[in-house]
Amino acid sequence: MSHYDTLKAQIASDFGTPAAVIDLDIVDANITSLQARCDAAGIANRPHIKTHKSPVLACQQIAAGAKGITCQKLGEAEIMAEAGIDDIIIATNLLGAARSGRLAALQRQLSLKCCADNQVTLSAYAEAAQQAERPLEVLIECDTGQKRAGVETVEEMLMLAGQIQDNPWLVFAGLLFYPPLDGWPATQTFYQHGAEGLAEMGLKAGIVSTGGTPNLRHLGMLDGATEHRSGTSIFNDRMMLADGIASPDDCAFHIYTSIVSKATPLRGILDAGSKTFTSDTGGLSGFGQIEEYQDAKIHKLSEEHGFLDFSECQSMPEIGEIVRVLPNHVCVSVNMFDRLIAVRGGQIAGEIAVAARGRLV
Amino acid sequence: MSHYDTLKAQIASDFGTPAAVIDLDIVDANITSLQARCDAAGIANRPHIKTHKSPVLACQQIAAGAKGITCQKLGEAEIMAEAGIDDIIIATNLLGAARSGRLAALQRQLSLKCCADNQVTLSAYAEAAQQAERPLEVLIECDTGQKRAGVETVEEMLMLAGQIQDNPWLVFAGLLFYPPLDGWPATQTFYQHGAEGLAEMGLKAGIVSTGGTPNLRHLGMLDGATEHRSGTSIFNDRMMLADGIASPDDCAFHIYTSIVSKATPLRGILDAGSKTFTSDTGGLSGFGQIEEYQDAKIHKLSEEHGFLDFSECQSMPEIGEIVRVLPNHVCVSVNMFDRLIAVRGGQIAGEIAVAARGRLV
Repeated sequence: MSHYDTLKAQIASDFGTPAAVIDLDIVDANITSLQARCDAAGIANRPHIKTHKSPVLACQQIAAGAKGITCQKLGEAEIMAEAGIDDIIIATNLLGAARSGRLAALQRQLSLKCCADNQVTLSAYAEAAQQAERPLEVLIECDTGQKRAGVETVEEMLMLAGQIQDNPWLVFAGLLFYPPLDGWPATQTFYQHGAEGLAEMGLKAGIVSTGGTPNLRHLGMLDGATEHRSGTSIFNDRMMLADGIASPDDCAFHIYTSIVSKATPLRGILDAGSKTFTSDTGGLSGFGQIEEYQDAKIHKLSEEHGFLDFSECQSMPEIGEIVRVLPNHVCVSVNMFDRLIAVRGGQIAGEIAVAARGRLV
Repeated sequence: MSHYDTLKAQIASDFGTPAAVIDLDIVDANITSLQARCDAAGIANRPHIKTHKSPVLACQQIAAGAKGITCQKLGEAEIMAEAGIDDIIIATNLLGAARSGRLAALQRQLSLKCCADNQVTLSAYAEAAQQAERPLEVLIECDTGQKRAGVETVEEMLMLAGQIQDNPWLVFAGLLFYPPLDGWPATQTFYQHGAEGLAEMGLKAGIVSTGGTPNLRHLGMLDGATEHRSGTSIFNDRMMLADGIASPDDCAFHIYTSIVSKATPLRGILDAGSKTFTSDTGGLSGFGQIEEYQDAKIHKLSEEHGFLDFSECQSMPEIGEIVRVLPNHVCVSVNMFDRLIAVRGGQIAGEIAVAARGRLV
């Protein structure tokens, strides 16, 4: 039996399938390599925990040298703060959390850095900070082509910076970018004009944050950048393989799933569907890569079944066989599980709670 | 202020956004109407709990007259059994749960009805039943055109029935169909030939189960059917509206989400993305219907953001406004939440745990 056959049998017997499995040896290497990449570029590392949602792994990232972490939801930050992490940027307009009083409650405990791209969010932040009796640091989110959140012009950025400056409960902390994957010329122009405008107001962007795992290839290219947010690189996935930023040896997360049905020789069914992989294709064809049968296609999902097409396969799995599937988008697939099974040296080493899963506010 | 404006403000203040909200008045009506539909057709009602994953709602379905429930995972059945529900069909090949010993553990507590479409699953079931020291009732899953799980021929069905008959730890309980939405002629033919073959073996399908909420329009059309599985009808969704089986007044579940950003007047961002709605479009355009702005399009999702296109809108929401979104596929969206906020008579009535969420084995 191969190493993986033994492991699969153990996982089937201890946990059943489908199971979410991470290889800690690869996780360690990915954490180290992200930190080394940031160190080499002279950019502080602030990993995005949306990918793993685990305080254990976030603490490991900090122990490896990360300056702090990035969260996308206040509920994630609450879980990370409980684990003692105190340097947190929440990279979105947090209106829902502000209005429910939870932003104020967490800000009372530790000084957060939040993001905004509009005046409504700034007002909600000021109110939360006042309730917390502690000024809130705010980064302005700027969009330089991705058409996500973020102000699109330097003028709007400066207007918001002025409003932060004028509000005793807000502190201007810097600028947050998610630059397009083009080498960042538009981001550089935006930053330069922005920095000049800020200087005229007597302000300076203490933090200039770039983001994205595919953008690691441009790390350090933005003159003025101080830190980078990468989430996916801790596990990697089929999207990162397709992008070329990761190799198969860098992929730490797999779904172990059983072939449970074969109505005809060329048609099979996995015991994992859209409630395991999610329907997020990440723009790729199919819903994951079966490592043992690379020519098999997961061509359709129902909620608990993955539909397989073996028509291009030389060899095919039998009913009962367990396969390892690399999902297209690891961040959303991790989010379907309460716990990840951790493997080290080919042996089951324990479980890691996806503690911030379901923290939607 | 309208009724919904008050409710939205209350939900924002008590819970924040995004929030999953169910209207219990509509839930009650949907449960009653499904039962009435089954009663009128002389078909037992066995709702599929995959949609709500809540023992509270499952018990309500049983109190309204349901014979029992359907689950898709053993983990769901474990949660339902804890709540005292003892008539459960698990409608899939349960290999993962059988191998981990969990099937035997639950079978020891109560007599389950499981499904199989192959010999490997039957062997695993027999082993679990033997461990549990209680024979397991098995339905054979049959495919009559949907190309999901299920044997495709009467001959295969009879071969499996024979294997069940020959095994002292297995009991032949019947046939499970998920018929195509065509009025079920192929299913009728399969059933008739199957019943004849079974009779020759001295067997009878005590349960003949049909499934699907869209298939409710064919309820009673299969001569020989004894019960039906409908999941989605308890809440309904945009897919059921598109199908015509539900009307807007039958839709009990909405995501309450805030507009958190508007980079340009025609472009907006919700604080709910693929980790809230999921990327499952259900074959529809866009990722949900905004009730207040029916011409607005949720055209793209990132993990925590929904991207809005207002270009066809007469009126548009402002930043900070909360909207109610009907998701395309309610079963997968409910599955992203730990709790649903329950509303009755326009007032918050409490929370309902999605207790079987994340029970993937």
